[in-house]
Amino acid sequence: MKNITLKASEIASMVNGELFGDPDRTINGVAGIRDAKVSDLSFVGSKTYEEMLNDSAAGIVLISEDIKSRDTEKRTLILCKHVDHAFGNIAAKFADEPPAWKVGIHPSAAISGSAKIGQGVSIGAHVTIEDDAEISDGACIGAGCYIGHGAKVGAASILYPNVTLMYRCTIGRKCIIHPGVVIGADGFGFVPGPNGLVKVPQTGIVEIHDDVEIGANTTVDRARFGKTVIKSNVKIDDQVMVAHNVEVGESSILIAQCGIAGSSRIGQGVIIAAKAGINGHITIGDGSKVAGTSGVVKSLPPNSVVVGTPAEGQRDFIARLALPNKVEKLSAQLKALKAELAELKALK
Amino acid sequence: MKNITLKASEIASMVNGELFGDPDRTINGVAGIRDAKVSDLSFVGSKTYEEMLNDSAAGIVLISEDIKSRDTEKRTLILCKHVDHAFGNIAAKFADEPPAWKVGIHPSAAISGSAKIGQGVSIGAHVTIEDDAEISDGACIGAGCYIGHGAKVGAASILYPNVTLMYRCTIGRKCIIHPGVVIGADGFGFVPGPNGLVKVPQTGIVEIHDDVEIGANTTVDRARFGKTVIKSNVKIDDQVMVAHNVEVGESSILIAQCGIAGSSRIGQGVIIAAKAGINGHITIGDGSKVAGTSGVVKSLPPNSVVVGTPAEGQRDFIARLALPNKVEKLSAQLKALKAELAELKALK
Amino acid sequence: MKNITLKASEIASMVNGELFGDPDRTINGVAGIRDAKVSDLSFVGSKTYEEMLNDSAAGIVLISEDIKSRDTEKRTLILCKHVDHAFGNIAAKFADEPPAWKVGIHPSAAISGSAKIGQGVSIGAHVTIEDDAEISDGACIGAGCYIGHGAKVGAASILYPNVTLMYRCTIGRKCIIHPGVVIGADGFGFVPGPNGLVKVPQTGIVEIHDDVEIGANTTVDRARFGKTVIKSNVKIDDQVMVAHNVEVGESSILIAQCGIAGSSRIGQGVIIAAKAGINGHITIGDGSKVAGTSGVVKSLPPNSVVVGTPAEGQRDFIARLALPNKVEKLSAQLKALKAELAELKALK
Repeated sequence: MKNITLKASEIASMVNGELFGDPDRTINGVAGIRDAKVSDLSFVGSKTYEEMLNDSAAGIVLISEDIKSRDTEKRTLILCKHVDHAFGNIAAKFADEPPAWKVGIHPSAAISGSAKIGQGVSIGAHVTIEDDAEISDGACIGAGCYIGHGAKVGAASILYPNVTLMYRCTIGRKCIIHPGVVIGADGFGFVPGPNGLVKVPQTGIVEIHDDVEIGANTTVDRARFGKTVIKSNVKIDDQVMVAHNVEVGESSILIAQCGIAGSSRIGQGVIIAAKAGINGHITIGDGSKVAGTSGVVKSLPPNSVVVGTPAEGQRDFIARLALPNKVEKLSAQLKALKAELAELKALK
Repeated sequence: MKNITLKASEIASMVNGELFGDPDRTINGVAGIRDAKVSDLSFVGSKTYEEMLNDSAAGIVLISEDIKSRDTEKRTLILCKHVDHAFGNIAAKFADEPPAWKVGIHPSAAISGSAKIGQGVSIGAHVTIEDDAEISDGACIGAGCYIGHGAKVGAASILYPNVTLMYRCTIGRKCIIHPGVVIGADGFGFVPGPNGLVKVPQTGIVEIHDDVEIGANTTVDRARFGKTVIKSNVKIDDQVMVAHNVEVGESSILIAQCGIAGSSRIGQGVIIAAKAGINGHITIGDGSKVAGTSGVVKSLPPNSVVVGTPAEGQRDFIARLALPNKVEKLSAQLKALKAELAELKALK
Repeated sequence: MKNITLKASEIASMVNGELFGDPDRTINGVAGIRDAKVSDLSFVGSKTYEEMLNDSAAGIVLISEDIKSRDTEKRTLILCKHVDHAFGNIAAKFADEPPAWKVGIHPSAAISGSAKIGQGVSIGAHVTIEDDAEISDGACIGAGCYIGHGAKVGAASILYPNVTLMYRCTIGRKCIIHPGVVIGADGFGFVPGPNGLVKVPQTGIVEIHDDVEIGANTTVDRARFGKTVIKSNVKIDDQVMVAHNVEVGESSILIAQCGIAGSSRIGQGVIIAAKAGINGHITIGDGSKVAGTSGVVKSLPPNSVVVGTPAEGQRDFIARLALPNKVEKLSAQLKALKAELAELKALK
């Protein structure tokens, strides 16, 4: 962390917040509410964590409106909006910069004579760049990356170490690709033949537009023909699987370990939560949200919110969860009715 | 794409199809039905997509028997069998060839003097090949691959870049291993000891037979003792996890992000769909099909078709899905019965 | 396998077992019960496999108390405790040693002049070690690994090939990191901005304590601020995803393809089984067990045992599984009651 000291009154003014307690108290670091020391700034953004506030040693704490405590004996409180975001901004001031990329080409890199290398690029150790590949201005290629024949990396994009970009696939501008990502491996296609399964050639590419981020060890497969497309500003987490011929619309979010089967279309602004699976050959409408671990088996209209496997609306899902209770009640009612009927018969 | 022009009548004869409309219409490319231009061949293989046919600009479209439209004003239609397959064959004619592997050894490769290297192999940049490893004739080892001590790669197999093949593990002939695959990492075995968990040595290997394909970032763990076996013609998708001592039978298919726990046996011709999980120490009978996202907890007889977690037959699964409706109906019936009984009592 | 011959009486004494049949029978190898030959030692540790005992060719078999057979015509039986463990110990005697790490630095490694390299280390081909990184005494860094700026690898730790350890992240002593693991990629954090999603800088690190093992292609993300922590003796399987700011307590076990969302705390001695998912910002109490494929959506007290999605107790889960039967019975009872009532009315 950087060596900075901030006064409570300074922080309150930075976050446009209301101060309770000593305005002259100082901190020189930031930490989560459980780990914070008296010299740290921390935050509590939701009632769920109010108890942790009492137990924390933090010297200054950003709090949201939910938080009732105004106990300033042990600390200074600053009430502000978007606590999480406000804290992030202050935390960023203390953060060490990530190491700078060295402009230049490491002597151990193996670069084809026919590759086009732009201005101001950084190419790390043990990188391989094949024939006719293009690395645009300002791009950074981490150690051990592989850039296949005719593949393209757009200007100012970053490939962290050990990324594999297969032949003819393209990455746009200002993308961030984390370690271990594989772009452009063959899609999974086989047809039964007389002597077993026969591979269907995967002759297309992967096309990644601008401002896309892709998490560690994610795989995006090349198209059977045409292209698998990840549109601008899509954010993909770790260990996500995007199959051949999928298209993911602008600003959609694919969270860790989810998977999209072949030829499906994910609209714009969609959120697919962790571990969810999307069937092949379906469409997820713009703005839809798929809950974590759900399995979506058919197309969804725009702005759908679904959960479960097979995925259904939240109301249906909650009703399904409540079934054991409902059946228990029915069972009791039935028993009572039986008794009533028996009594009636006995009376006759 | 290659620069080729094909006439509708030529295509009809290639796919052994029946032509409707102008036989002289030409195309010079192929595309999916949504993206196709008037100069493209496309296909519609199922009623589900019939509407897209009307909206498409495609000049020539292969159609299946399901498709009722014979509207040939805007395009030529060709009715044929196995539309998907037929289209794939035509598409392959337009596809650019994948880049050729260069025969020879890249000077940056680090190859042990005791490794045996066959004829006509291609070994890329930054490859490491350890003592006593064997690379058979015609095999291709992509840039950045690691071949461990005594490991073997069979004739004409392809390892794409950044594959890790650990010591003594073996890959058969004509296999295709995609980037980021790890073969032969330790199986996961620990026993409680007096000072915490104690590692159980994983002393076996992984043995991969002929004509196997393994998708990007999949992991196949070495056996605790003996071997983990992937038999001939098995096809494995991306991000699949095969644990120690598993055996996968001939021509089985493991789809993306599924996982097989330790010591289980998958029969021949089995399909494990995406994200499904198979418990340890069980057997999945030949020809069985496990639906996506299912969790199989006990052994299955041959030709089983299961779905859900814990996995059950389709009929049971569908009945379970219908439970909310069923309970709703029961509830209504119960209410009616109650009313009837009350009426009866009032009459007395 | 090593060339060793063992007599049944010797084995019985090694495992402290009771011998049935010929004490002079010998074996020179070990194998699973299905694959064992007459010259092999095998084991059957549970009644489930008793049938396999009869069908096996194994010359000597370790058996547990569950196994009733004492048929020693074809083989010698040795009854012992902890059969699985006992067999493992004998199997270890036959196992070939893993290849030794060569002490020294491969000439192709690219190591910054400011990196600190300890005594007796092994650094493989095509390794990259950046500025200010530290490799402690006796550590082994496999071919193709990347060690980022200021990252630290503790004494006697092993990084198998193609591991990526990002800047400033730390690995403790005697850890084992399998191929393809990525430690310290950015956590997944974005906030909506006026022109789309805005990246939240991930300025923290990953801190891995001593005696931790991490399976192939697992990813552990760096913290948004502060650190993601994996405490001592934690064992992580393949393809696990640990998100930013997670803390995993001592001796916990994360099994293949499970995932822990951001800021969650996993206690000590917890077992998260395969493919389970843990929501963000929750706590899993010490000693808890989460069944495979479960989705845990809220915090769990210590020693919880949960299953399903959303995860619930075993009793609740089993009741839910039994619902179709229960509803079927209710339906039959209701029908009977209806008939009874109709009869009663007819009598009037």
